[in-house]
Amino acid sequence: MTAGHDRPPIPARGLLPIGADVNPGGYLMLGGCDVSARLAEYGSPLYVYDEATIRGMCRAFISEFRAQYLDTHISYSCKAFASPALARLLAEEGVGMDVVSGGELAVAEAAEFPAGELNFHGNNKSREELEQALAYGIALVTVDSLSELDLLDEVARARGVRQRVLLRVSPSIDARTHLLTTTGVLDTKFGFSIETGQAAEAVRAALSLQNLDVAGVHFHLGSPIFELAPYEQAIRYVLEFAAGMRGDGLDLQVFSPGGGFAIGYVEEQPAPSVAEYARAIAGAVKDACAALGVREPRLVVEPGRAVVGRAGVALYTVGAVKDIPGVRKYVSVDGGMGDNIRPALYGARYTALAATRMWDEPTEKVTIAGKFCEAGDLLVRDARLPRLETGDVVAVPATGAYCVSMASNYNMAVRPASVMVRDGEPRLIRRRETYRDLLSTSTL
Amino acid sequence: MTAGHDRPPIPARGLLPIGADVNPGGYLMLGGCDVSARLAEYGSPLYVYDEATIRGMCRAFISEFRAQYLDTHISYSCKAFASPALARLLAEEGVGMDVVSGGELAVAEAAEFPAGELNFHGNNKSREELEQALAYGIALVTVDSLSELDLLDEVARARGVRQRVLLRVSPSIDARTHLLTTTGVLDTKFGFSIETGQAAEAVRAALSLQNLDVAGVHFHLGSPIFELAPYEQAIRYVLEFAAGMRGDGLDLQVFSPGGGFAIGYVEEQPAPSVAEYARAIAGAVKDACAALGVREPRLVVEPGRAVVGRAGVALYTVGAVKDIPGVRKYVSVDGGMGDNIRPALYGARYTALAATRMWDEPTEKVTIAGKFCEAGDLLVRDARLPRLETGDVVAVPATGAYCVSMASNYNMAVRPASVMVRDGEPRLIRRRETYRDLLSTSTL
Repeated sequence: MTAGHDRPPIPARGLLPIGADVNPGGYLMLGGCDVSARLAEYGSPLYVYDEATIRGMCRAFISEFRAQYLDTHISYSCKAFASPALARLLAEEGVGMDVVSGGELAVAEAAEFPAGELNFHGNNKSREELEQALAYGIALVTVDSLSELDLLDEVARARGVRQRVLLRVSPSIDARTHLLTTTGVLDTKFGFSIETGQAAEAVRAALSLQNLDVAGVHFHLGSPIFELAPYEQAIRYVLEFAAGMRGDGLDLQVFSPGGGFAIGYVEEQPAPSVAEYARAIAGAVKDACAALGVREPRLVVEPGRAVVGRAGVALYTVGAVKDIPGVRKYVSVDGGMGDNIRPALYGARYTALAATRMWDEPTEKVTIAGKFCEAGDLLVRDARLPRLETGDVVAVPATGAYCVSMASNYNMAVRPASVMVRDGEPRLIRRRETYRDLLSTSTL
Repeated sequence: MTAGHDRPPIPARGLLPIGADVNPGGYLMLGGCDVSARLAEYGSPLYVYDEATIRGMCRAFISEFRAQYLDTHISYSCKAFASPALARLLAEEGVGMDVVSGGELAVAEAAEFPAGELNFHGNNKSREELEQALAYGIALVTVDSLSELDLLDEVARARGVRQRVLLRVSPSIDARTHLLTTTGVLDTKFGFSIETGQAAEAVRAALSLQNLDVAGVHFHLGSPIFELAPYEQAIRYVLEFAAGMRGDGLDLQVFSPGGGFAIGYVEEQPAPSVAEYARAIAGAVKDACAALGVREPRLVVEPGRAVVGRAGVALYTVGAVKDIPGVRKYVSVDGGMGDNIRPALYGARYTALAATRMWDEPTEKVTIAGKFCEAGDLLVRDARLPRLETGDVVAVPATGAYCVSMASNYNMAVRPASVMVRDGEPRLIRRRETYRDLLSTSTL
């Protein structure tokens, strides 16, 4: 490398956290921390979260959306990555949280997250989960089925409260993301279909229940969505539906077009900016409200991946290297489908970086394989990298969402530690598991 | 229902554990236990393992293979499901165990599993894992790369031992199973390719190392394999290779054609019997040895799924039911992709049974959806079932392998309990997790 102005560009800079840098020795720095030193301290593999990137994304969502639509509330979808430390940080930034289970609610409770900023989603909430949510004083429950309407009304009555709810509707729109994560179509387990008339029926049923206060409607198209048109189309359709229900008594105070905002995983497929999503969504809501002659509702926007995805970087240590001449060179690392199931599950593409050789020229095309006993355990195919040796560190950027949260103990692998970095200081937010942890629920 | 001889057949009998029955009230009984009572006791969802089926499969593998080939050793591949209680049971039955990580070895250690019956597999074993294995006195290490040969030789030298090893070779044969679980092809991260000459190079390298004792070769085609021909073809090819290495000093004492034996998941696709696999494999080994003029080696057969798959039944409780007229009826249960990722990951098909209405006529076609916030979280599509209501129990047979072992805490769901049933007595072998467990590794 060369110093000063002649310094070459950092590889995949746009996929890395905002504070990412490379030191003169060619080591990747995140939040001012040398990642290879962190691996030695916390064990390999390791997930590093850059606090500045998370806070920056929270602020971007709040400011970009409010610039277009003042009455916007940002609610982080914590299925992307749930952690008490993260919840505390979100609360500091004025971002709410969507939970989908009693366990995610327990994370919020552990962080003493403001109950007034919580929204409970999900297609099959149990009575116990609804009781837990109401006991905590949750602001909103997004109801997904007729049986849940009755169940929630009953739980609210038993507590002597009137629970504020949204109704999840399904707009029959294909957001053209992966089939497994496309949720807004007609054939989905989620929500009440507008097309079949079931959404209208649900609104009437909800309005008739004494212990429910119907605040508005929600929909979600899927994730990640790289295009803006599906949002615009669905917003118009759902707002038309809501306007049509005024005669039945629906007063649309809150409107949520969900989340699903994409991030860049590979340089060839950049995601729209937060500003672009904000302009498209706010514009569609304003236009539809004007055309329909309805008051503009409060807008609830629910990013998950987009808040934490880019903030997270997975770090692995290289083990066995195997070259099959004329076929493929496999570089095996010490993690894989146990900590990141997305390549195997969705065919997700990632980018691999040589975190200990960042200034070296890429000279090889290699496949980064995991250590799990399964042929499909490949993290990145055909990565252009400098020559890697056993002991080198491989970084996989854009792994802050849906990696740690979906991690398993397959092959009885311990799940890696997660550290939050800021201003050169690492802070452990989730310790590495131990074999003792793995055996703690088992008996002979 | 009717009693005595007029009793109708039990639905999907062939997919259920061998002791499965239905009581007069229409409740599914496993190992003499009413499953709905077990759900009340251990919480829902629940994985039930039938001990008699596991022991029966161990005995079937031992007796069917030894009937064809006396010097056979059965080694259970515990990535299918690892548990100290299971390991103890296998040891009682005279079945060995394949481990693929330090964590799986820790399970064996917790059960005081005989070290002489353990084999360590995997494409990227770490120094620490090899040290752990040798400290426990492991019988065999199946070496997967040149760098592992050197590393293991070094670890063995430091301990002052000579480690017995197999070499994993890759026979470039497609066993026509799912792409993610096809391992025996040329383009694989596993083993040394015979086709490229790398396997010959590995044998020579291994024979030259002072602290390794080369006992033989291993290959594995993938899983599940419903056909017999790929085994026969690969066995001939690999034994020809081994015979060809005699001049270099290879004395083939042990030969392992791996595992990959299928089980029935749906009635339309039955698996070959253990006897059929045994006849095909033993016959191919004997024929090849005779043709090549080599002594018949010890045969090591490594079933995983086939030992535990049919023994396990997942039980779920029905929550929300949603009918989209003309499209699909969704019956949502309280588990899903968190405890069984296989439908989403591999497109695996399962069978759903109405465990609380086993004598009722199937009158509906429904889709069993999970409770995870993801459109792809569907356990069984288009199941023919009686009309189910909230509170009914759904059983999914053939879930003993690769469900609990691949389970995650996605959506912060707690992982279900596992119980072993025998002669009407349930025994908890893995307790249900708690929210406290989920938070135990996190710090604010």
